[in-house]
Amino acid sequence: MNKPENHTPRRQFIQQSAALSATVMLVGPTQLLTENKAMKNTASKGYAAKSKSDKLDIWSFERRAVGDNDILIDVKFSGICHSDIHQIRGHWGAQTYPQIPGHEIAGVVSAVGKNVTKFKVGDQAGVGCMVDSCMTCTSCTNGEEHHCDNHATVFTYGSPDKTSPTGITQGGYANNLVVKEHFAIRIPNTIRLQDAAPLLCAGITTYSPLMRSGFAKGDKVGVAGIGGLGHLAIKLAVAKGAEVYAFTTSESKRKDILGFGAKEVIVVDSLDKLKPYAGRLDYMISTIPYAYEVSNYLACVRPYGSFTQVGQPVGGQLTINNSIFMYSRVNYNSSLIGGIPETQEVMDHCAENKIYPQIEVISAKDINATWDKVVNKEARYRYVIDMATIS
Amino acid sequence: MNKPENHTPRRQFIQQSAALSATVMLVGPTQLLTENKAMKNTASKGYAAKSKSDKLDIWSFERRAVGDNDILIDVKFSGICHSDIHQIRGHWGAQTYPQIPGHEIAGVVSAVGKNVTKFKVGDQAGVGCMVDSCMTCTSCTNGEEHHCDNHATVFTYGSPDKTSPTGITQGGYANNLVVKEHFAIRIPNTIRLQDAAPLLCAGITTYSPLMRSGFAKGDKVGVAGIGGLGHLAIKLAVAKGAEVYAFTTSESKRKDILGFGAKEVIVVDSLDKLKPYAGRLDYMISTIPYAYEVSNYLACVRPYGSFTQVGQPVGGQLTINNSIFMYSRVNYNSSLIGGIPETQEVMDHCAENKIYPQIEVISAKDINATWDKVVNKEARYRYVIDMATIS
Ligand SMILES: [Zn+2]
Ligand SMILES: [Zn+2]
Ligand SMILES: [Zn+2]
Ligand SMILES: [Zn+2]
Repeated sequence: MNKPENHTPRRQFIQQSAALSATVMLVGPTQLLTENKAMKNTASKGYAAKSKSDKLDIWSFERRAVGDNDILIDVKFSGICHSDIHQIRGHWGAQTYPQIPGHEIAGVVSAVGKNVTKFKVGDQAGVGCMVDSCMTCTSCTNGEEHHCDNHATVFTYGSPDKTSPTGITQGGYANNLVVKEHFAIRIPNTIRLQDAAPLLCAGITTYSPLMRSGFAKGDKVGVAGIGGLGHLAIKLAVAKGAEVYAFTTSESKRKDILGFGAKEVIVVDSLDKLKPYAGRLDYMISTIPYAYEVSNYLACVRPYGSFTQVGQPVGGQLTINNSIFMYSRVNYNSSLIGGIPETQEVMDHCAENKIYPQIEVISAKDINATWDKVVNKEARYRYVIDMATIS
Repeated sequence: MNKPENHTPRRQFIQQSAALSATVMLVGPTQLLTENKAMKNTASKGYAAKSKSDKLDIWSFERRAVGDNDILIDVKFSGICHSDIHQIRGHWGAQTYPQIPGHEIAGVVSAVGKNVTKFKVGDQAGVGCMVDSCMTCTSCTNGEEHHCDNHATVFTYGSPDKTSPTGITQGGYANNLVVKEHFAIRIPNTIRLQDAAPLLCAGITTYSPLMRSGFAKGDKVGVAGIGGLGHLAIKLAVAKGAEVYAFTTSESKRKDILGFGAKEVIVVDSLDKLKPYAGRLDYMISTIPYAYEVSNYLACVRPYGSFTQVGQPVGGQLTINNSIFMYSRVNYNSSLIGGIPETQEVMDHCAENKIYPQIEVISAKDINATWDKVVNKEARYRYVIDMATIS
């Protein structure tokens, strides 16, 4: 058992100490630990970072035994999200190591606890950004487990977790995963696991605010930032009947973007390029993940329309031009992933309507080189690790 | 005739050069100028600044002649808004001088043009923050003349105005005013002119977003920043049935605020004081006019509720903590005054329901000393100049 270093691990999203101590109190019921004493932990291996500056390397470790409400998933594919890099590299605060990233996890169920009803051995199953919450508060019972009012949301990797032999949750760049069935998503057999994986973060993160915006067929929807999240936002909005305007800084993506179904591609090499769109869109979603001139994009939305930021700038701060907000009359909000019922919804919707991410499958040995490509904005549009290549 | 200095006057709100050239093109129709050649300009006097650092002093000048669609108002009372100070002092950009501030103007009609139907001589009338716009665009025809799509909104003082002998609009710290009848508000005889004046900026600026928020009776409404705008926001929200939570930094205002009908006063001497209110309000309006920790206030609103900023920070920039936005799930928007139909609505509503600002009437000779008091946050809660004291 690896003892975590004695500093507080931090998530980019969590409002720090209060939230974390609540997490420690609420996860890992004593009963489960007691029962598990007699049970065997789950042998696992995956790609872990040993420090914020180390490359990822293969690491053998243990997960908890499969409890009564748990399933064991043989991980087949795991998507690479830019968040993996930010968190492991310590951009969002100090971390506990070794830590295995990965929250776009798709595989096949290989064992189930005695209370499990949603899965049987052999089913396709996935896990996204979280693996536990209090399950009783208003947000949890409303299907917003990621907004647990008791701050008991446990994220898929790096969260303190008393049920884990390593003391923290360990993510999906691994050969298997033990998870409460509630936090696992059914993956229909009509969608391939490598296509399903990116839906569990990139898909739900854009689907949730798109649906909340309530746009109608024929409405003009803007998508800013066309990467892993943005390209799925385009496909999801197009499938729901929107006329999509895609804003990118990469001329080289134009052809792809039109292929995703966008009506127009705006290459924003200068903010002047946004001016002709002032007040023209019904809704806009931005996946731009750094501090940028958000007000200029927001002004593309019509008066009293909405704008959602889903990219989280490093440091979490954005400076807005309040005069532009005042004149444009647009509602600004920010959105974090989505809950379990809605993640199931986007999975089923994509399987049924053949909405697939554009992916490139890589071997486990190429993870580190691929992270460099992600940082260099070379992803077209999501890398997915083939876990059969884990050595 | 005073020739304006040869630099571009700027408004805090206007998106500069494009807006201004549009303004110059669109205001002052040639026809009116031609007709007026044979007519006599209107002799006026008021309190003007000769430069951004000069004290205001009495100044005799001319307004345009009363045109066919104009009314002449004998100004009886003029409210003092913090914006007056910011603009005259050049905090929001370079200005043309001499310039007379004042956009909370209440008086009695003393002449009407031949096409005027809304007023007759002897009627009570008021003027707020604007005196013209294109009148034909979507925003103007929707009653949002302050958001004229042709950028032709002419603000009450300091805006370029070809119809004005001084080249710019001159405000209400004066004995009279010539204005297109459309931009004048009827003031019922059931409300005193000194009580009506502050409704024309402070009243409409808070009433408009409060009404747009659509709060229901019994909803919890937060008001942050209890000055000229905030105290009216409390009274207006209470009158519409809200349970009002008032956030101030001044313990000394507590008793007054409870007198305005607030259910609770929160003295925010540290941001910790906001924590117990996290997620509890249905809506919040902030009149805090400087760059502040807006995210911490915003987090007092329930998920998917709204927050409106009506104070404009100096420089127009606000830095937000996007993590708090993400977690709180609150819609943020910013609001600028209100249109003419809604200004009439708040005037009628306040007259009918006896909703009056808490004012202190001052003499014209005390304007400069009173400005110092406003800057020092001594206003309790709106100063109104008695124009009978102009010398
Ligand atoms: Zn992700
Ligand atoms: Zn919960
Ligand atoms: Zn004002
Ligand atoms: Zn207009």
